[in-house]
Amino acid sequence: MNDYKALSHLVKTKVSQVLGTSQGHVALHEPEFLGAEEDFLRDCIRSTFVSSVGHYVDRFEEEIARATGTKHGVAVVNGTAALEVALRVAGVQPNDEVLMPSLTFIATANAAHHLGAVPHFVDSEERTLGLDPNKLRLHLNNIADTSSGITINGHTGRRLTAVVPMHAFGHPVDMETLGDVAAEFGLKVVEDAAEALGSKLNGRPCGSFGHVAALSFNGNKIITTGGGGAIVTDDPTLAARAKHLTTTSKVPHKWAFIHDEIGYNYRMPNLNAALGVAQLAQLEKKLLQKRALANRYIDVFRECSDIQMFSEREGTISNYWLNTMILSSAVSSARDSILSMLNDAQLMSRPVWEPMHKLQIYANCPRADLAVTEDLARRIINLPSSAKLGA
Amino acid sequence: MNDYKALSHLVKTKVSQVLGTSQGHVALHEPEFLGAEEDFLRDCIRSTFVSSVGHYVDRFEEEIARATGTKHGVAVVNGTAALEVALRVAGVQPNDEVLMPSLTFIATANAAHHLGAVPHFVDSEERTLGLDPNKLRLHLNNIADTSSGITINGHTGRRLTAVVPMHAFGHPVDMETLGDVAAEFGLKVVEDAAEALGSKLNGRPCGSFGHVAALSFNGNKIITTGGGGAIVTDDPTLAARAKHLTTTSKVPHKWAFIHDEIGYNYRMPNLNAALGVAQLAQLEKKLLQKRALANRYIDVFRECSDIQMFSEREGTISNYWLNTMILSSAVSSARDSILSMLNDAQLMSRPVWEPMHKLQIYANCPRADLAVTEDLARRIINLPSSAKLGA
Repeated sequence: MNDYKALSHLVKTKVSQVLGTSQGHVALHEPEFLGAEEDFLRDCIRSTFVSSVGHYVDRFEEEIARATGTKHGVAVVNGTAALEVALRVAGVQPNDEVLMPSLTFIATANAAHHLGAVPHFVDSEERTLGLDPNKLRLHLNNIADTSSGITINGHTGRRLTAVVPMHAFGHPVDMETLGDVAAEFGLKVVEDAAEALGSKLNGRPCGSFGHVAALSFNGNKIITTGGGGAIVTDDPTLAARAKHLTTTSKVPHKWAFIHDEIGYNYRMPNLNAALGVAQLAQLEKKLLQKRALANRYIDVFRECSDIQMFSEREGTISNYWLNTMILSSAVSSARDSILSMLNDAQLMSRPVWEPMHKLQIYANCPRADLAVTEDLARRIINLPSSAKLGA
Repeated sequence: MNDYKALSHLVKTKVSQVLGTSQGHVALHEPEFLGAEEDFLRDCIRSTFVSSVGHYVDRFEEEIARATGTKHGVAVVNGTAALEVALRVAGVQPNDEVLMPSLTFIATANAAHHLGAVPHFVDSEERTLGLDPNKLRLHLNNIADTSSGITINGHTGRRLTAVVPMHAFGHPVDMETLGDVAAEFGLKVVEDAAEALGSKLNGRPCGSFGHVAALSFNGNKIITTGGGGAIVTDDPTLAARAKHLTTTSKVPHKWAFIHDEIGYNYRMPNLNAALGVAQLAQLEKKLLQKRALANRYIDVFRECSDIQMFSEREGTISNYWLNTMILSSAVSSARDSILSMLNDAQLMSRPVWEPMHKLQIYANCPRADLAVTEDLARRIINLPSSAKLGA
């Protein structure tokens, strides 16, 4: 316990050193508005187009597609809605199973559930903090029956339709191996890029690897629309269907109200898109600031044998959405002591999410061996990561 | 057909007379921002609280509760989300049936469907344009088995849990008779007040009659938050659960991510609430303007025997969200001719929604006799109704 105190104190000292001493309360991740935000909002109000129609929504959709190296963007109310619709246009039906990491934010599982599908949890790898495609292959070899391109979970009898890699804290999943595994088993890849705007793998942006991807612009993300999300894809048919579904599936007509699918009221309001367009123009600057901050964290902890600051692996560029400290197994029991000392010092810090399979609401979902997930979940601490801290 | 042309021309002339001649394109309903909108948005941006936390959300919730004569408000991303969560906190479970008018906007049916429940369509009455409680009673007497306070649809075996009166175009449903019928059959009343902010029945605001009610602040509503909605109720337990569900059901903890129900990411962003607070301060003025406009429409069509401008019935105050013209049965076939002439003249006009049971997506849902719905659906035309047109 004395050792934990010493270690906690060391961590607090080094984090304070990175952040500067006169900070007061330091948030985990807060937005900053240094561009045209106020001008665009004023323009939006004066145009009276604040709701589901407007040129900021169209522009935001074009620009978010460009930023993710995709051809089409569909702006929606938040990342959960984006993922739900992405899964649906990828072909997920009620009672299908959706493969996803257990080590993710609740939105990934909720999006599948709200479609009537069942999350099926698989393990993550320490190399990426994301879904482990090699372990996924071994798991599917054990449980899956594939014929005519359709894969059934032999244990539950349900169809396995899609796999959802989630780029944790901005670090890209091994999408290339995952793409091979998905192809072997006829799975659609629905990329949960909620945390990964600006991250790249072998030069390609996160969001451009899946059949379709979901993004989030919640207030704690690298850019924000207040609340918001987007679906991005290269496939014009999927994009058009996503747009249709998110605007109540109303059939174009000079006046009649005909809806040909059961859709959603998920359109991002023009007001929120106005904020998003202004924010997106600052993305590159924010990425540089976040990289500078990450490098400072990496530097100060370089000599600590029990602490590893997670850094981008070869071939990847991370947006370093959150700076992630991984404790060695030897000191993992110090996690709560470190969290307490950091938070008491107004340096807002958080553990990783409770793994989905450990929550009672998802405890009965099918799952693979989750040894790495359970191990990582005990050893992660996320540190203050706002872009301005790297300015 | 010549007669239709003459009638259409007459309608166009009288509508132009109400709106003035030099209008150019006149929208069906557009917002106006004459209060503190720009100031509050600027303040919101400078505070950096644009997302799920912020004082505008708290203030909007208090003020929307006050405006509807209820004790608690929970602000959400839109009216559909409000209704879905209202149904859930009222106790609707997957596979339950939810009684609702067929003559409604798609959101009412979609909200039930997204919960996994089944819409059960009942008829409306010409007196209110809303659900007919007397006809509902007759229907339930035919199909329902009630024991120990639980009502089962004898034809489908499913539980009938809730009834959703929707105040069409701002005109209050006969909530008093409906309350009696709901009590007889152990049904929860979930009020769809999306269109009825500011309307009253016997001095009580719409939104205060149900166990819980849903509101909408879409761009076409009497006040707007860009996109948004709210749940209002007098019941502190229902309100607290609605708030919990709409904020991912995260359990308060100094750092752990535990979610104890499968919730939603439905919280209204502070940015949208900032707009809402400014708009709500103008509600009374907008109501007066809309009333003045409605009276002008009523006046100019008073002498037309084949046209009735729908006006508030005894004991009610309507917000006149949309001005509704009802054609006599003798001239109902003129509807499309009138719609064409009005829209061609840039006077945006719309029929009522396609009744839900006529849409293929809901054609197989259980339903009562819907003779009045089908008749009304052929005879309604909504006319330009923005508050500023009555200024």
